[in-house]
Amino acid sequence: MGEFELIRRFFAGADIARDGEGVVLGIGDDAAILRLPADEDLLVSVDTLVAGVHFPHAMSARDIGHRALAVNLSDLAAMGARPLWFTLALTLPSADADWLAGFCAGLAALARESGIALVGGDTTRGPLSITVQVHGAAPRGAALRRDGARAGEDLWVSGWPGLAALGLRAMQQGSAAPAEALAAFLAPRPRLALGTGLRGLASAAIDVSDGLLADAGHIAERSGVHLALEAAALPLAPALGAALGEAEARALCLGGGDDYELCFTAPPAHAESIRRLARRLALACTRIGRVEAGSGVSCAGAGMLRAGYQHFGEG
Amino acid sequence: MGEFELIRRFFAGADIARDGEGVVLGIGDDAAILRLPADEDLLVSVDTLVAGVHFPHAMSARDIGHRALAVNLSDLAAMGARPLWFTLALTLPSADADWLAGFCAGLAALARESGIALVGGDTTRGPLSITVQVHGAAPRGAALRRDGARAGEDLWVSGWPGLAALGLRAMQQGSAAPAEALAAFLAPRPRLALGTGLRGLASAAIDVSDGLLADAGHIAERSGVHLALEAAALPLAPALGAALGEAEARALCLGGGDDYELCFTAPPAHAESIRRLARRLALACTRIGRVEAGSGVSCAGAGMLRAGYQHFGEG
Repeated sequence: MGEFELIRRFFAGADIARDGEGVVLGIGDDAAILRLPADEDLLVSVDTLVAGVHFPHAMSARDIGHRALAVNLSDLAAMGARPLWFTLALTLPSADADWLAGFCAGLAALARESGIALVGGDTTRGPLSITVQVHGAAPRGAALRRDGARAGEDLWVSGWPGLAALGLRAMQQGSAAPAEALAAFLAPRPRLALGTGLRGLASAAIDVSDGLLADAGHIAERSGVHLALEAAALPLAPALGAALGEAEARALCLGGGDDYELCFTAPPAHAESIRRLARRLALACTRIGRVEAGSGVSCAGAGMLRAGYQHFGEG
Repeated sequence: MGEFELIRRFFAGADIARDGEGVVLGIGDDAAILRLPADEDLLVSVDTLVAGVHFPHAMSARDIGHRALAVNLSDLAAMGARPLWFTLALTLPSADADWLAGFCAGLAALARESGIALVGGDTTRGPLSITVQVHGAAPRGAALRRDGARAGEDLWVSGWPGLAALGLRAMQQGSAAPAEALAAFLAPRPRLALGTGLRGLASAAIDVSDGLLADAGHIAERSGVHLALEAAALPLAPALGAALGEAEARALCLGGGDDYELCFTAPPAHAESIRRLARRLALACTRIGRVEAGSGVSCAGAGMLRAGYQHFGEG
C-alpha cells in the first residue's frame, strides 16, 4: 500500500462530517449520489489554493484547512445559498501525519459549524495545492447574483474590510498586529447567515475577496450600473485607524483583500430590514454608497484610489 | 491586468460548451446556478491530474485536455449517469498560448461530444495540475453502485483491457506500439452510453482505472462477495497478444490500468440483454467470471497474479 493510499484512509477515518441532508451515497464509490429538494436550485463553486500564492508558506496546517473551505463557503454566502456538500482534491508533496491532522482539524471544525458534508475527494502527490468545490441550495430563483443592482438602490458592506490586509501585512513584515486583524486574515468567517438572510432583501451581492472597490466593480459591470461609494461612510475598524492613520486605513478598507465580507445592493425601502438582520446576527452592516446610472465605481472624498488588489504573492 | 486574468479571459472566450440542460447561470458569478429535474439524483465526482504522476510530462496539451475530462466522465459512466455540468480548476506554471489552445481544444471536443457544459472554474499559478469535477444525473435510485453484486451473478468487462498499458509502455520506452494501444492510453473513451444502458441490467459497476483485478476487488469489497475470474474468458486484444505473447498479454489485461472500461456484475437472466446492448453500441462486452460467496478476487488459470497496479509514475 503506497503512502497515498494511507492518506486516503486517513481522510476516510477523519472526523469530517459525511452524513448530511440529501447524501444518498458519500465517499467510496465512483461518484457520490446526492438528492436536492425539488423546489431548490443547486449552487456550485470551486476555488484552488496554492501554497505561496494564496497563503504564506508559513501558515499553519489548521489555518490552511479552515481557509480552503472558508473561501468557498464565502461564495455560497454571496449567493444566499445554504451549504450542503463539498469535495476536496488535495495534492501533497509527502505524507506528513502532523500536517494532515492539523489540516483535517481546521477543515472539520468549519464543516461541522457550517453543516456541510464531505462527499468526495482525491488525494495526489505533488506540490501543495488544495481545490475545494462546494454545493449549496437556494429556493428556485432566489439566489443572489451580481447582475441585479438597479439605479437608486443603496450599496452596503458587512464587517470591517481592510482588517485582513492589515493582518497579512503584519505577518509578512513580522510585526505586531491587533488580534482581530490576524484573526480576519487567518480565520475568515464566511457570512452564510447574512447571505441567506439577504434573500428577498438584496438585489445583488458579491463576497469581498479581491478588495471592496474591485469586487464592487464586478457588481457594477454585471449589473450595468455605477456604484458611488462615500469615503466618509466607510466602516473603518478602530484597530485599522489606530495602526495606520485615517488615510491609509481607508485605502486598506477599499483596496485590501481576503476579508470575505459581503458587498451588496438593496432598495432603500429594505434598509430597516437589513439593519434588523444585522442586529440579529451581531454583524455590522454599513450603507457605504448608492447605485447610479453609468458604469464603474467611484469613491467621493477618498483621494487617489488604488484600483486593484493582488492576492498574497500574486503578480 | 496580470497574466492569470488573461488566462481567465482566454477560457471565458474558448469554445467550450457553456449552455446546457439546467444551466440557469454559468461562469461569471460567485457560483453557478443549476437546476436538476425533480425526479433525478445528482452524481458528483472529482479527479486531479498532476503532470509526471498521472500523465507523462511529454503528453501533448490536447491529450491532457481530453484526459482530464475523460477520466471524470468515466466515473459518471460507471454510475450509469448522464453528464450535465463540469468545473475546471487549472494550475499552470505560466501562460503559454499554444499550450492553452491545445488543452482547450482537447477538452472542448470531448465536452461537446459528451453533452457536458463548463459552469465554473478557477485558474491559478503553480506547478501544472488539473482538477475536474463532473456532475451527472440518473433517475432517483437508478445509479449503478459498487455494492450491489450478489452471489450467482456474472462478471463482465467492456472493451480490451491492457491495451492502454501497452500504449503507455511503448511511450515510456520510446518503442513502437499498435495504433489502438496508443489511442487507448492517449485518448480513453468514457463508456457513457454503456453506463446508462446498463441501468436496470447491472447490479454493480466500476470503471477500470487501476487495473481489472484491482478494480474488481473494489466491487468485491463493497458488495461483500468473491469475484472468480477465468483466465480463458479474458478478452485479449489481438494486438496485445501479438506484441507480448499470451501470458504477458493476460497479465497486462488483469493488471494494466488507464483503460477506463467498465467492469460490472449482472444476473445471468440479463446476459442476452447485455449482449444486445453491446452490439448496438459496437462495443465488446465479455463475461469474464462469476460472483460467489466469499471475499476478494481470483483468476483460475492465470498463474501468478500481479495484485495491484500503480498509475504512471506513482510509487
